[in-house]
Amino acid sequence: MNAYLDYAAATPVDERVLEAMAPYYSERFYNPSAPYALARAIKKDIDDARSSIAHCIGAKPDSITFTAGATEANNLAFAATNGHVITSAIEHESALACAKAREHTLLKVSSEGLINPHDLEAAITPQTEFVSIALANGEIGSIQPIRELAHVVIAERQRRLAAHETRPIWLHTDASQAASSHALNVSALQVDMMTVSAAKIYGPKQVGLLWTRAGVALRPLVLGGGQENGLRSGTENVAGIVGFARAMQIAQENRKDESKRLTQLRNALQRRLLDEFPWAVVSGPTSNSRRLCSLLHISFPGLEARRLVIALDKAGVSVGTGSACAASKMRISHVLKAIGADEPTAAGSLRITLGRQTGKAQIEYAAQTICELVHGEAARVGIESGETR
Amino acid sequence: MNAYLDYAAATPVDERVLEAMAPYYSERFYNPSAPYALARAIKKDIDDARSSIAHCIGAKPDSITFTAGATEANNLAFAATNGHVITSAIEHESALACAKAREHTLLKVSSEGLINPHDLEAAITPQTEFVSIALANGEIGSIQPIRELAHVVIAERQRRLAAHETRPIWLHTDASQAASSHALNVSALQVDMMTVSAAKIYGPKQVGLLWTRAGVALRPLVLGGGQENGLRSGTENVAGIVGFARAMQIAQENRKDESKRLTQLRNALQRRLLDEFPWAVVSGPTSNSRRLCSLLHISFPGLEARRLVIALDKAGVSVGTGSACAASKMRISHVLKAIGADEPTAAGSLRITLGRQTGKAQIEYAAQTICELVHGEAARVGIESGETR
Repeated sequence: MNAYLDYAAATPVDERVLEAMAPYYSERFYNPSAPYALARAIKKDIDDARSSIAHCIGAKPDSITFTAGATEANNLAFAATNGHVITSAIEHESALACAKAREHTLLKVSSEGLINPHDLEAAITPQTEFVSIALANGEIGSIQPIRELAHVVIAERQRRLAAHETRPIWLHTDASQAASSHALNVSALQVDMMTVSAAKIYGPKQVGLLWTRAGVALRPLVLGGGQENGLRSGTENVAGIVGFARAMQIAQENRKDESKRLTQLRNALQRRLLDEFPWAVVSGPTSNSRRLCSLLHISFPGLEARRLVIALDKAGVSVGTGSACAASKMRISHVLKAIGADEPTAAGSLRITLGRQTGKAQIEYAAQTICELVHGEAARVGIESGETR
Repeated sequence: MNAYLDYAAATPVDERVLEAMAPYYSERFYNPSAPYALARAIKKDIDDARSSIAHCIGAKPDSITFTAGATEANNLAFAATNGHVITSAIEHESALACAKAREHTLLKVSSEGLINPHDLEAAITPQTEFVSIALANGEIGSIQPIRELAHVVIAERQRRLAAHETRPIWLHTDASQAASSHALNVSALQVDMMTVSAAKIYGPKQVGLLWTRAGVALRPLVLGGGQENGLRSGTENVAGIVGFARAMQIAQENRKDESKRLTQLRNALQRRLLDEFPWAVVSGPTSNSRRLCSLLHISFPGLEARRLVIALDKAGVSVGTGSACAASKMRISHVLKAIGADEPTAAGSLRITLGRQTGKAQIEYAAQTICELVHGEAARVGIESGETR
């Protein structure tokens, strides 16, 4: 049996998405900027995909810029500013790297990985132009109080308006990890910019978007033919964009039922593992409403996660140790550091993420395999001797 | 009958390329940075693709950075410098836009669209750090004397070395339009950086690469998880990269025969049109060795190309009026301006580009259709009255 449990790292492309993409490689391969009818039809297909996605997030089509993935979208968002930026200590590498290239403040997070809006309030200076906070963390699943954070930014904007200060301040959220389980209505979220990735919602890799509220002035990272309203030049990834739109539709249709289903499966797995290993540590918010329904971050302090990952792999169970980028480098995660995890807890962490192909059988098999292997490893290093620690 | 004759704008994805890409959407969808064997196999597939492409261009695998298309690769190349840059007046929009964002000199070109190496020599200043010249122009097909241009850059480098000047100078070439018909061996070309696009060689859109010689220090445009040696972050477009490698192999295998075949077809079309319209103007180099074998740029001075394109389109013949980006804006091409074309010639221009699916039948049909329509238009505006002009 195989149990792939690393959906936060990559999702297979949905069959229906593949079907939507298929015509654009051969029959409908035309350059959307070309002047003849066959090409203008492709341009229309891109426009339709843009409108469809805009509809899914409650936005206007022309407020969406397609990019080659979420990382590029985050970079494009940060490029809108040269001023002071604020992000949190647990953000994705792309946000952290962009912040560190500028004058920046990193917000601390609680032991559950949550940001306190008061901390944001305190960190904002008159020079702050940009705040970037992921809607959901991809490693421990914390869902941030984005509306409360938005209110802080809106209050600062109003203060500046009243004080006749002209410097803008925008709130950006990377919603890539949240998109399968959360409605991404930009009005409800009250953010000013939002990143979404197709690759996390059963769409193709290297396809993403940045949504921006009217008034936000982006600065292109890639100059050229002027595609995407001059904000992202280069002949469009037509198949990718059409596939992205289909993936968003499907995510939207399935979101409620799938979230419910995954919450039950994840909770069952968590109960099973905690029953078996009362000394294990689950990270992330304790409240299910604040934690990604598809994610279980569990640590076995004293064990080496890399050994567990390899042993699980041999048994057909694929899990991560953190975000995929950090995982391949097998180094201690900045997210776990930020929530104050001690070294043994951090080093013994598995990130288990569920998705559409995950059923009871996979969870049962994964649970059983993890139990066996963790018992074996714990015995090997002398952690367990029958009793709980 | 249909005759697609705009291969310089877009090529359909080759069936064999599609076949190579197919597994990476569903079975082999794993994140190449993830730690388990299924994912490490994907990492290896990317490495293999990189090696295969490196072999095609006579380079080392680690000298290749995959990007989301040629435009991004050109932007990444330019980002290596903050100093003075030199490019030509007939470059692709991406090179021109990048140059214009810096201190720059635009080289003039001959009436055939060729750059004189002496002009490059004269334009280089002690502050020049970067020279970008496309191997082949996508609009009129001029193939630049890239080795002679490289010799000028090498001579300047040697002068600086002797003078203990530490400023580097690099020659970059965008080989996207040349890749179907030209061997892209970087040692033979003697360039320091090279852009190639998958989308112009029957591979997927938004997939490209930048090759750099050892010693060239790139500055990433997109920061994050550190993929592509830290030069282009974001989860890799695995399907795209694998497809790109396959497309390069096929291009390499077919290059000689296909170039010969297309030269014959293009020449036949050119002869036919010039026989019929002796007043028509063919732009680009007169020597076939200096002109892309797949391209015919022909002007009917006094006629409106946009009207011809629309009429041809109705008859099933798809041609461009210049580069696709400019074409959609229906404005006078900067390339034609640069070669000194007068307004009526520029406004009456068709860019006809042939490709793998172009056979004698398409050329015959296109020739006949163009003849009929041009006669009709010429009569309408009073250019022809039976005799040649």
